[in-house]
Amino acid sequence: MKELEKLFDRIIQRVNINLRELEFDVNPVVSQLVPTGQMTKFYAFYGITPHHPLNLIFKHSNLSGSYFLGRCRVTNSLLYKSDIRGDELKKKGDLFQYQEFNIPVDQDEEIRIDDSFLIKTLVHNFSHDPETLERFFIRDTVSTHYANIHGSPSDGCYLGPFSTVDLTTMRDCVIGAYAYVQAGEISHLNVDPGTVWVRKPGDFNFMYRYPLSQLNNYIYFAAGSPPQGIFMDFVEDRKEAFQRVFNVVNIESPVSVPATASLDRFAVIKPKTNIGDNVLVAQRAFLQNSTLGKGANAQENCYIINSTLEGENVTAHGAKIIDADMGNHVFVGFNSFLRGRPDARLTIGKESVVMPHTIVDIRKPLTVPPGSLVWGLVRNQDELEANSMSLKDFSKIKTRLSKGNMLFEGSGTSFVTAFQERIHHILEANGAFYDGNLNRGHAQRNQNISFNTIQPYPEGDKEGMYPTIIIQP
Amino acid sequence: MKELEKLFDRIIQRVNINLRELEFDVNPVVSQLVPTGQMTKFYAFYGITPHHPLNLIFKHSNLSGSYFLGRCRVTNSLLYKSDIRGDELKKKGDLFQYQEFNIPVDQDEEIRIDDSFLIKTLVHNFSHDPETLERFFIRDTVSTHYANIHGSPSDGCYLGPFSTVDLTTMRDCVIGAYAYVQAGEISHLNVDPGTVWVRKPGDFNFMYRYPLSQLNNYIYFAAGSPPQGIFMDFVEDRKEAFQRVFNVVNIESPVSVPATASLDRFAVIKPKTNIGDNVLVAQRAFLQNSTLGKGANAQENCYIINSTLEGENVTAHGAKIIDADMGNHVFVGFNSFLRGRPDARLTIGKESVVMPHTIVDIRKPLTVPPGSLVWGLVRNQDELEANSMSLKDFSKIKTRLSKGNMLFEGSGTSFVTAFQERIHHILEANGAFYDGNLNRGHAQRNQNISFNTIQPYPEGDKEGMYPTIIIQP
Repeated sequence: MKELEKLFDRIIQRVNINLRELEFDVNPVVSQLVPTGQMTKFYAFYGITPHHPLNLIFKHSNLSGSYFLGRCRVTNSLLYKSDIRGDELKKKGDLFQYQEFNIPVDQDEEIRIDDSFLIKTLVHNFSHDPETLERFFIRDTVSTHYANIHGSPSDGCYLGPFSTVDLTTMRDCVIGAYAYVQAGEISHLNVDPGTVWVRKPGDFNFMYRYPLSQLNNYIYFAAGSPPQGIFMDFVEDRKEAFQRVFNVVNIESPVSVPATASLDRFAVIKPKTNIGDNVLVAQRAFLQNSTLGKGANAQENCYIINSTLEGENVTAHGAKIIDADMGNHVFVGFNSFLRGRPDARLTIGKESVVMPHTIVDIRKPLTVPPGSLVWGLVRNQDELEANSMSLKDFSKIKTRLSKGNMLFEGSGTSFVTAFQERIHHILEANGAFYDGNLNRGHAQRNQNISFNTIQPYPEGDKEGMYPTIIIQP
Repeated sequence: MKELEKLFDRIIQRVNINLRELEFDVNPVVSQLVPTGQMTKFYAFYGITPHHPLNLIFKHSNLSGSYFLGRCRVTNSLLYKSDIRGDELKKKGDLFQYQEFNIPVDQDEEIRIDDSFLIKTLVHNFSHDPETLERFFIRDTVSTHYANIHGSPSDGCYLGPFSTVDLTTMRDCVIGAYAYVQAGEISHLNVDPGTVWVRKPGDFNFMYRYPLSQLNNYIYFAAGSPPQGIFMDFVEDRKEAFQRVFNVVNIESPVSVPATASLDRFAVIKPKTNIGDNVLVAQRAFLQNSTLGKGANAQENCYIINSTLEGENVTAHGAKIIDADMGNHVFVGFNSFLRGRPDARLTIGKESVVMPHTIVDIRKPLTVPPGSLVWGLVRNQDELEANSMSLKDFSKIKTRLSKGNMLFEGSGTSFVTAFQERIHHILEANGAFYDGNLNRGHAQRNQNISFNTIQPYPEGDKEGMYPTIIIQP
């Protein structure tokens, strides 16, 4: 184990050097989070398909339980049960548009993880930083349970549990638990837990802050203990179901899956689940007693339970939907937690946008009208009114609006349009619009993936370290 | 599948060019043996341990269901359910003794397989050819079901089912079904099915030929059909038991295994099996209702059923022991088939040597006295007398002896000594003599292996081809 422990120390030191200005010491925060014994227990795995440029390089790392697809290089890092999904990387020859620039992509984009420790983290999407088109880097970074690093290069950062950094390049930042940041480029910031921040410089700025005392019921994290709260309890309670999925090599699909849909073999499907055409269910998704209509998707770490998704629904990474009826074309952002009750269903009307990191947790039936924008903490009708607006009304904002804990500045139209375009892009990329011929996406391309497993040295000084592994076409 | 089919054609052509002088066309023989659909169905796997120098390079090959350990490079080849076990390769710095030469080993020995098609073949042991110490090559070679390539570099050869080439470098040879060759160096030979040939040039020459009409009941192979006969029926009947073993990632040992023994997780262990100290059970071994005493071993493709092995028993690759009681220190050579019956047990006395490729198949109880040498086909007491001698008497041969279908020339002492030394070496290498401190061998070193799985492209032109994979420390 010697090398594994040395590697851990090395990573912590490097991150702390980066965060010295913020006076953030990552060591007490993560030192007990994953016992080294756990790091030797689980195999890592990578996908092989003809549709994804294959170039995986693993060096001097532990990859326990992690998943890789596409072009990815990992060096001197600890990746614990993380997903590195490189199926939307830019390709050589692509032309990247940024403002007035048309920048040619010089070589296939690569996700490059160095000197980092990622715990149950999702890395996905292509990076949008025009400064580093070919290299989506994650360096000197520690991230914790269910963090999303979404198209966001990171250098010298710490991400708290259930945080998301989206299409944002960050340097020397601390992202608090359940904070969501989509801000283009940030550096030397300490973002408070429960901040939801969407900024397009010169265009708009959306900012919401969870009341901390309420947020702590859902997610609370302090040095010395693992993350706590409803979010953790919820996933821990369903952990066992994944064991069988990971312990069997060939698994039969427990439900019938249309030829146009894809159900990842590492997803958990409980009884009474229906999967429609063009549906995409990613690995580590959990479906139970639910119906996914045409073109709906369930991304990594999603839980959809006792719910109906009418169609073209985006359920972004880590979102949970329980006892709910979702209309057509409803978007549910990252790590949102939407919980109705068996006797108090949650209904969300068509074409609504549930912002990333939204909590709807009700005891009485609640209906979100069609075409709504919802954010923040909603536990009843009053909170819904405080934390939502119709997209139509939101579009009318010209300069500024303050509502409850939310402050918006800039153009509402830009904001709403940006969201809608993005939702359209996600659906398109996922293959929701596939017509049997055109608009093929992940749902059609990811149907037939071969998975290879890799494991570390089982004993000796190198126990827990993976050998150098290079996989190329 | 295009590339896979092109690769097949390419290999066949290369082998045929090598075998043109023998007028042997390998194409009709193997063209239907493994449907290409089968080649995409099974994962390959390789072992990671701190005890075996790790250097695996796979390029432009299909490795379906095959296993790899140690230092090995595979290029332009099809390996179907084969075992490439590189745990006895020579190491850099070793001194290799050959006659009056002391040859330093320049670099770690590597098993190098190029342009070959191996079906259910075992490749093991280090090559004994002083001309190629660092490279155990298998080139332009086709081998079929349950062939053993044991320390035998091969260039331009065809091996029939259940054949074994042992410590022999071969060029442009055809080895018939169930032929056993241990002859140092051979070229441009067509060895008949059922030949058992052990030669040490200048020292001795042992030659036995199975009566073909009898052998055909056990193994018969002609172009256009898969191998047939009792041997094939026997393994096919037990095939299903392996499915579970290969379909589960973490498997619990079904029996208690002493700390000094090793039971491979890809072996099948049926109820009422006892495993003693220092026992080695390799992958693809099958044990049922049997007892393996201290230091006994069961190598790849062995079946031990309703039998007792007293201790220090070598059960070489592919040997089968059914309804038998084996005394201490009994050696059973490659692919031997020893079948008693529930009401007619086979007893083999201590320190006997059952030659490779021996068939003992009885309907009435039979006892082989201690210290015997047994060869060929033995179905009753008469055939036992025709096809065995005491090792003591055999040692007395000075020039020549002919007995039944067996002809021996040379020194009986040399022959017996060579066998006994080899048996001692095998037991030593396998860890049979481990005393808790000294004499550690495979049984102690192979206890804790991590297995990684690899799979081919699931579709497209490259369907069935494995990506390039390089694994290094």
